[in-house]
Amino acid sequence: MTIPRALTIAGSDSGGGAGIQADLKTFAAFGVFGMTALTALTAQNTTGVYGVVEIAPAFVAQQIDVVVTDIGVDAVKTGMLANAAIIEIVAAKVKEHSLQPLVLDPVMIAKSGAPLLKPEAVDALKTHLLPLATVLTPNLHEASALTGRDVTDLEQMRDAARALHDWGAQNVVIKGGHLAGAAVDVLFDGEDFTEFRSERLPNPATHGTG
Amino acid sequence: MTIPRALTIAGSDSGGGAGIQADLKTFAAFGVFGMTALTALTAQNTTGVYGVVEIAPAFVAQQIDVVVTDIGVDAVKTGMLANAAIIEIVAAKVKEHSLQPLVLDPVMIAKSGAPLLKPEAVDALKTHLLPLATVLTPNLHEASALTGRDVTDLEQMRDAARALHDWGAQNVVIKGGHLAGAAVDVLFDGEDFTEFRSERLPNPATHGTG
Repeated sequence: MTIPRALTIAGSDSGGGAGIQADLKTFAAFGVFGMTALTALTAQNTTGVYGVVEIAPAFVAQQIDVVVTDIGVDAVKTGMLANAAIIEIVAAKVKEHSLQPLVLDPVMIAKSGAPLLKPEAVDALKTHLLPLATVLTPNLHEASALTGRDVTDLEQMRDAARALHDWGAQNVVIKGGHLAGAAVDVLFDGEDFTEFRSERLPNPATHGTG
Repeated sequence: MTIPRALTIAGSDSGGGAGIQADLKTFAAFGVFGMTALTALTAQNTTGVYGVVEIAPAFVAQQIDVVVTDIGVDAVKTGMLANAAIIEIVAAKVKEHSLQPLVLDPVMIAKSGAPLLKPEAVDALKTHLLPLATVLTPNLHEASALTGRDVTDLEQMRDAARALHDWGAQNVVIKGGHLAGAAVDVLFDGEDFTEFRSERLPNPATHGTG
């Protein structure tokens, strides 16, 4: 039996609810061997982000290189990328090593409201990484920041998904967790729209990035 | 149902086979919610450690503080602590927050042979952290470095375990994975010795820290 190998390129959430910690837990739950390239460390809990240490882009690249060239990578996910320099080197490594499929979660702010991506880095994300994405997974806020449009209802979600696909993401899932009313995710694969509806869960003490 | 909460204070292994990555996978497998305080990042795979970034002791402390004061911690494990300054601040935080039980894995070198603890930090480990350990889990090499004695057979393992208990560790498990012949771990709880024998597994492509 071959165990699938997934690499998450993302930040660390000390509280364990988001970042590479949540990705590793998800990979483990699905029987996938998890590897990491850390882009930033946060001192974070359910109430906020109290400290951030950004990692040097060259060291982000080194973490990717040593994993790809030895263990091998069957799928990649990106999360918090912190700044434009890290985005550019991650995009370069994705191209150099042909890392596909790529799930691009355009993490911008923590659930607590703390910024996890420098505002001026949004353009770098659109220019360098979005066109490499197999699946792009913004929430409403991130879809709005990427498109420069309001994204607050299903029609605007469909419009934003189409725009993000036109900019190069093969598939776009706009996550509707912040919608008023029912939580509906909208998938656009370049041809068709699919809606995923789910019941609201009782309010748990959630935390981490959205 | 209450989910147990465990904090690992350790390094990051990009290759996923050791460090906080392995700890989080183990916690998940046992239904334990995992949290982290990163002490160092390594760019590491099965063949070696190609880069190390040590984290500022104050940020290690901050990661511990935000997790303990908000989410809560039922058990702590330490791994790679990198240097004496990190050891001292971790020991101070363990005392300040009464973090017990504490599993102290005195990580010193990676399986590939790369150093993960500065040699001059061994004394800090013995002085500040060892007396706080509920369980100390050295391998043969680490037991030898801590005691200054040869530890290569069962009799020497028992002697070293007794010495490490006398220095303050409540329970000592010396891991015999590097023994010639059968793999035997030796536990000393301050009164009795218990031996755990296990069959050698077929040689997998193992990696990470021992």
